[in-house]
This record gives sequence, C-alpha cells and structure tokens, in this order.
Amino acid sequence: MRYELHYWPGIPGRGEFVRLALEDAGQDYDDVARGPAAAGGGEGALAAFLNDVDPPPFAPPVLVAGALVIGQTANILLFLGARHGLAPKDEQGRLWVNQQQLTLADLVAEAHAVHHPIASSLYYEDQKLAAAQCARHFRTERMPKHLDYFERILAAAGESGAGLAGEALTYADLSLFQVVRGLEYAFPNAMRRLSPRIARVLELAARVERRPRIAAYLRSNRRISFNEQGIFRHYPELDD
Amino acid sequence: MRYELHYWPGIPGRGEFVRLALEDAGQDYDDVARGPAAAGGGEGALAAFLNDVDPPPFAPPVLVAGALVIGQTANILLFLGARHGLAPKDEQGRLWVNQQQLTLADLVAEAHAVHHPIASSLYYEDQKLAAAQCARHFRTERMPKHLDYFERILAAAGESGAGLAGEALTYADLSLFQVVRGLEYAFPNAMRRLSPRIARVLELAARVERRPRIAAYLRSNRRISFNEQGIFRHYPELDD
Repeated sequence: MRYELHYWPGIPGRGEFVRLALEDAGQDYDDVARGPAAAGGGEGALAAFLNDVDPPPFAPPVLVAGALVIGQTANILLFLGARHGLAPKDEQGRLWVNQQQLTLADLVAEAHAVHHPIASSLYYEDQKLAAAQCARHFRTERMPKHLDYFERILAAAGESGAGLAGEALTYADLSLFQVVRGLEYAFPNAMRRLSPRIARVLELAARVERRPRIAAYLRSNRRISFNEQGIFRHYPELDD
Repeated sequence: MRYELHYWPGIPGRGEFVRLALEDAGQDYDDVARGPAAAGGGEGALAAFLNDVDPPPFAPPVLVAGALVIGQTANILLFLGARHGLAPKDEQGRLWVNQQQLTLADLVAEAHAVHHPIASSLYYEDQKLAAAQCARHFRTERMPKHLDYFERILAAAGESGAGLAGEALTYADLSLFQVVRGLEYAFPNAMRRLSPRIARVLELAARVERRPRIAAYLRSNRRISFNEQGIFRHYPELDD
C-alpha cells in the first residue's frame, strides 16, 4: 500500500515530521500537494481535499492509509510508529513516545507563536513589536526549558541510550532532529549560546541525520528547506 | 488500583479533562496536590513530585497508574479511554478520538494564549494590549472556526450520533463539554452570538452534563470552578 500525505506544498511545517517517519521507515508515499495539478497537486486542490475528505480533518497534515484518513501530526505518528517499528510495542513505551511527541508539539506551537503572537491570519510585519517581546521570552525561558528537559531525558538513559525512549530510535527522535534543525535555522545565536548544555540533544540530532535513509532523503528534492513561510523562520531581529 | 492525579490545586486547567474521564468512568483517584500537606498536597509538593518522579514529565497533569507514570493530557486520555471504555476499541475509532482530542487541545492552547500572548511568565496586566488584539482575532476567527468544525462533525453523524465518534460517548466528548463551558465562562458575549450555529455542540455539552456520574461530580466539591488563574479566564475587556 502506498501512503498519501496531504500537506501545504511550500513549507516543511508539521508535514515534515510525518515525512521523516515515512522516509526512515522506507515507505512509499505520494506527497500529493507537491505533485502535478493533474494528480491533485497545488494548494487549491489541497484545500478542496481537506474540505471533502471523510471524515474531515481540522487542518493538515493528513495521512491516507488505505481506508484510514488520519489527522493531527502526533496521531499520524502514533499510527506509523506502531506499524513500522518506530515505537516500542509495549504500552508503557508506546505512551512514553507519544508523551515525548506531544511535548515536542507544544514546543513547535510555541516556536510558531513567536512570529505570530497576535493572530496567524495577520502578517508577521503587522505584529513585529509583539513578536520581538515574545521572542525574548522564548529564547531565554521556553527554549532553554524545553531543550534542558530533553537533555535530561537523554542523560538519564546513560551511555546505552540512543534516544528519548532508550536504545531503539523512535519517531520522537526523528521529530527532535527536525525541531533542533529548525531552532538552529530560526535562532542561530540563541542556539549557539545554549549548545554547551545540550550536548546530548545535538548529538542525537546528528545521529538521526547520519541514518542512511534520512541522509539520502535530506539530499533529495523531496526535502523542503526551512523558509520564512513555515514554523521556524529566521528573522534576525528575533534572535539578537 | 487507585489512580493518582497530579495537577495544580487551584485551577481546573488541563487536569480537568483527566478528572472528567476518571469521574465518568467511576474510577477512584487521589487528586494529590489538593489533599493535605501530610499526604503530598500543595503546590510545593507538586513541584517536587514533578521533578523527582521517574520518568520526569515536562509539565502536569500526570497520572500515576500503578507502575505507569503518564504525562500529557491527550496521552493520559488515550490510556484511560482504552482502559475504561471511553473510546472505540478498533484502530480507526481510537485514532479518530485521539485526533479530536488533539484538535481540542489546540483550541485550549489558543484560548490560553489569548490572555498570555507574549509570555506565560508575565502577568496578564503586563500584556493587556496584545491580549486585546489577540482576543478580537480569537473571538471572530478561531473560536468560530473550531466550533463550526465540531458542529460539522456532529451534523455528519446525523440523528443517531451521540457524540464526536458516533453513538458511544468518548473522552473527547467529555473534553468538548469542558471547552464549551470554559468558552461560555470566558467569552459569554461571543458564545451568545455563536450559539445559533452550534446547536449540536451545545446540545452535546448539555447531554454530557446530565450523565449521572458527571452531574454528581459537578455538584461535588471535587469540581473546581473556572477562575482567573486558569486557562479560561473572564476578562470583560476581552469579550466585547
């Protein structure tokens, strides 16, 4: 079975967490909105799909897996993790990885709110003053708190621990890689200052990047670069 | 087995979504931080617990279920839903209810951000101007978009549908009840204006409220009222 991923074509966004899991699992998928218009590609076709598919999702990404139509990033990953060995099989491990993914999702939402603190419907330029205030708190309070937390989880695993859930890599580790690279893109100065105290987090991101399927994916044109329409945006004035 | 719920003692907050599931399922639980100091009650003891428990959660609520220590609201509900018949048993239904819960969680986070758009570490009084702007967009764009979505899901279920996942009530329905009551508390004017177009959502909330265990719970002193330290806060200037 070939998966269908439905997500905005121009940004890595939340779709990227799903892509990383599909790529690491070696699964075939159509990134539908990025394909030709004749095959349902483009933003207009995506909007129509989101409105017409049954049951309707609130927002993308959406994964179509045979008869299943699955929305919400962490929910899609819960499904893919169980199906493709990217999460522990036991209840405790499965819940723990879901918990880590939801904590990462909170950080992702906060990273987006930095440049859109008033409303996602307004341009960044129309909320720059609030964004600058928000960014200061994010860089000095929230980013350190979140990254210190993941560093602590990895430290507790000791030498044997490969990732957030122990020896076997999970979809939460793949997501942590994307979050680290996103924060490095958006807040290079802040990340440079934090780097000495999050050595394990950075090493995990590097290890994910070296996985053969991930390395091949990152070199391919399937990978979308970070940019100023996505979640992680580099506005130098927000990273002093 | 008696569950332990660990959450801030003074607010309904995200802990309330867990309480509603435990109460509807008729499960015994200790709401630990609300208990006497001798039994680990109080905010200081909660902070110490969150720091010491293994594995550490990023934030409360935390549910202790025997040897399991589970964090993140939607993750706790995924666990309780499967264990106590508050979610479908099949994969498709289970994923759908999790998806609905995560969409509700996004709405809850947005409702909190209305009064804290700059930083959760600042007082509301220090971000009132940004909050007023944020509230206008929330009331006129985000609240309608979210509530229209849930209305549409319920409408698609037709006459037979009792809730977001069909005939059998799920933990997502209990959470929708809490969100509706919270929005009515925080934004009574905005909710009054929206009410004609979300009749099914309001009727579902009323039906949840009439369930015998929920009705008994709401009359008990275990239920914490909405207040201005929680997620849903009534600031009249944010609801014109």
